[in-house]
Amino acid sequence: MPGPLDGIRIVDVSEVISGPLVSMILADQGADVVKVEPPKNGEESRQLANYRAGMSALYVNCNHGKRSIGINLKDEAGLHLLYELIRKADVFVQNWRPDAAERLRVGEADLRAINPRLIYASIAGFGFSGPYADRRGYDPIFQSLTGWVTAQLNPEVPIPDLVRNAVVDKATSYALAQGITAALYARERGASGQHVKISMLDAGIAFFWPDGMLRHTLIGDDVSNLVVPGERYQLMPTSDGRIVMWASTAAQMQASLLAVGRKDLADAPHQQGKAMIQAHSQAERAAAVRDGLAAMTTEQAYAALVEHEVPAAPVLTHPEVLTDPQLTHNDCFIEAEHPVYGKYRRVRAPVRFSSTVAGPSKSPSLYGEDTDSILDELGIAPDKRRELKESGTVK
Amino acid sequence: MPGPLDGIRIVDVSEVISGPLVSMILADQGADVVKVEPPKNGEESRQLANYRAGMSALYVNCNHGKRSIGINLKDEAGLHLLYELIRKADVFVQNWRPDAAERLRVGEADLRAINPRLIYASIAGFGFSGPYADRRGYDPIFQSLTGWVTAQLNPEVPIPDLVRNAVVDKATSYALAQGITAALYARERGASGQHVKISMLDAGIAFFWPDGMLRHTLIGDDVSNLVVPGERYQLMPTSDGRIVMWASTAAQMQASLLAVGRKDLADAPHQQGKAMIQAHSQAERAAAVRDGLAAMTTEQAYAALVEHEVPAAPVLTHPEVLTDPQLTHNDCFIEAEHPVYGKYRRVRAPVRFSSTVAGPSKSPSLYGEDTDSILDELGIAPDKRRELKESGTVK
Repeated sequence: MPGPLDGIRIVDVSEVISGPLVSMILADQGADVVKVEPPKNGEESRQLANYRAGMSALYVNCNHGKRSIGINLKDEAGLHLLYELIRKADVFVQNWRPDAAERLRVGEADLRAINPRLIYASIAGFGFSGPYADRRGYDPIFQSLTGWVTAQLNPEVPIPDLVRNAVVDKATSYALAQGITAALYARERGASGQHVKISMLDAGIAFFWPDGMLRHTLIGDDVSNLVVPGERYQLMPTSDGRIVMWASTAAQMQASLLAVGRKDLADAPHQQGKAMIQAHSQAERAAAVRDGLAAMTTEQAYAALVEHEVPAAPVLTHPEVLTDPQLTHNDCFIEAEHPVYGKYRRVRAPVRFSSTVAGPSKSPSLYGEDTDSILDELGIAPDKRRELKESGTVK
Repeated sequence: MPGPLDGIRIVDVSEVISGPLVSMILADQGADVVKVEPPKNGEESRQLANYRAGMSALYVNCNHGKRSIGINLKDEAGLHLLYELIRKADVFVQNWRPDAAERLRVGEADLRAINPRLIYASIAGFGFSGPYADRRGYDPIFQSLTGWVTAQLNPEVPIPDLVRNAVVDKATSYALAQGITAALYARERGASGQHVKISMLDAGIAFFWPDGMLRHTLIGDDVSNLVVPGERYQLMPTSDGRIVMWASTAAQMQASLLAVGRKDLADAPHQQGKAMIQAHSQAERAAAVRDGLAAMTTEQAYAALVEHEVPAAPVLTHPEVLTDPQLTHNDCFIEAEHPVYGKYRRVRAPVRFSSTVAGPSKSPSLYGEDTDSILDELGIAPDKRRELKESGTVK
């Protein structure tokens, strides 16, 4: 059975992560995505990081299930081709800087004139207007402005750091993919085509906020029990490494004492009921667990914590992630092969549908790999296609 | 005009972050959410972190736009009430451990018998089956198993750390909110009601992967130019602190030299064109920029980098985030007030719709605040409501 978004046609001109990941999420659910790339070398991520035979790993990870065509939108014939694609599209995605789309004559008004029912999706960096709107923004910049970097500073690691993963780019993508889907749903029930907008800065703070800004949620100084869970995240030293443990309930806290062989303490009255959350009891328990884990190897500590049902995990290296028994049981990793760039590995989309199940989406295309099939669908004959290629209008 | 999900009715029995944030995203877009909480004290996050007058900040941040009712599902009359709510619902959300819903007789089959068109959404921790399926999981555990912790280790911060924010919980929420919306869309176009599932472990690796697992995407050892952007994220020391700088394009790299007053170097032939990406040129440029920034205050460095259009940002503290000129220009922060727990601050949903614009969603409810209105809608008379309360079936 086809995916839930089967029949939806998307034209995507976006680049790198924030935009491409949006249309990949939708493609994985059955949408037909035409990726329109700029002339010469295609979109920016084809040039970024880890290549083989004209394909980069970053492009692979954000562009499954799409067909690629290169179009020079600054060329009148190229712009006309984009308009032809828009005529039959449901969604358009762009992540240029504010006003760039209008300058290229592919702004919302331009495309809505061609297709009134279009969902026009835009990603800005800092915002669509405002003091920083014209600046170019990147993930680490947004992390720094939205509290992520400050949050990394803590007693165990007294050096501020960034989250070393493009969390803001991807929060943007996930939020916009949902927003586009909601706009499609509303359109199906009678709403008009509309503009769905997101700024990476807004996505960065919105994603961080729910647990990250607990100290700034209730306003006033009469708030009791100031706790932010992330401040308590901690790697516990073992005799040969570190382990993550997260004892959240009273039962888990008691069990953590049993895991390190301190039944004597677990049975003590001040480690029972309400007494166990008193400062003295907490400090005593924390010290006992810390000392106990430090005397065990990581393997011993993990086994003991699991045996006593205390949530825990070793720190997996990236190769170890690929062979983890639960991740592999869940079929999280998919190996595939493209005739030119060869074997690669991808991660499975995390949402699983019971009835609208799309097959695995196609391998990412080389630059312009699908130009002929796309132009053919537009009814453009082979000789005209050759002409468009020779003039540099398409690649 | 109402939001894109206006008219959708959701019954949500989930707790803490991963589930509640899903239905909050949908509520912010106009869905009507009935939050069914367990008896006695309501759902778990009401007891977690930062309280005032019976409300916790974590609950506030994940439960806007919902009505609250306490129902004892282990009581036959309570279970019947839930079934009545399901009769008119479009979506059911739960994040109990695998099989708990079935034991409570609110598994997919139970609810589908009542409402065949229901979208039944389930969140598991490690998975719905498999070696770790019965374990309780929490965000830091999933981070450790899916590569996030290993990624934080780097030359500047030689201590592994966790991301101190519940990134896996929220990746789960965002992905599932999109999946539910896609299932609603498919249903509107003729698909059946269905089960939409996600595991936090799967969501953690899927979110991390696109840029985090670049070294493990193309399989084989003939990959050139191994680079992972997050490994290059760096806070640059200034004379009085640190600043984030991200020079991504050739023009930005050259401009970074101008920003630190090294026009001499920027004009040198080996800092032009292809020569500038040679190892020697890169090292020389990095050293010049590092030395230059170290001699400036953070304020001077930020001004100089912005003037030369090099992407940069100071590390904002959390109070500074709240007053940042672009975030406030974007109206990211909303102050509101509840009659009992008083003033609070929330973050605005990042996706903005141009035509289906929902008003701000209602303040989070105290435990059982909406029990009467919900029971009234089910046609249950005041005397019967009093009886249900007295028997402990509802709160």
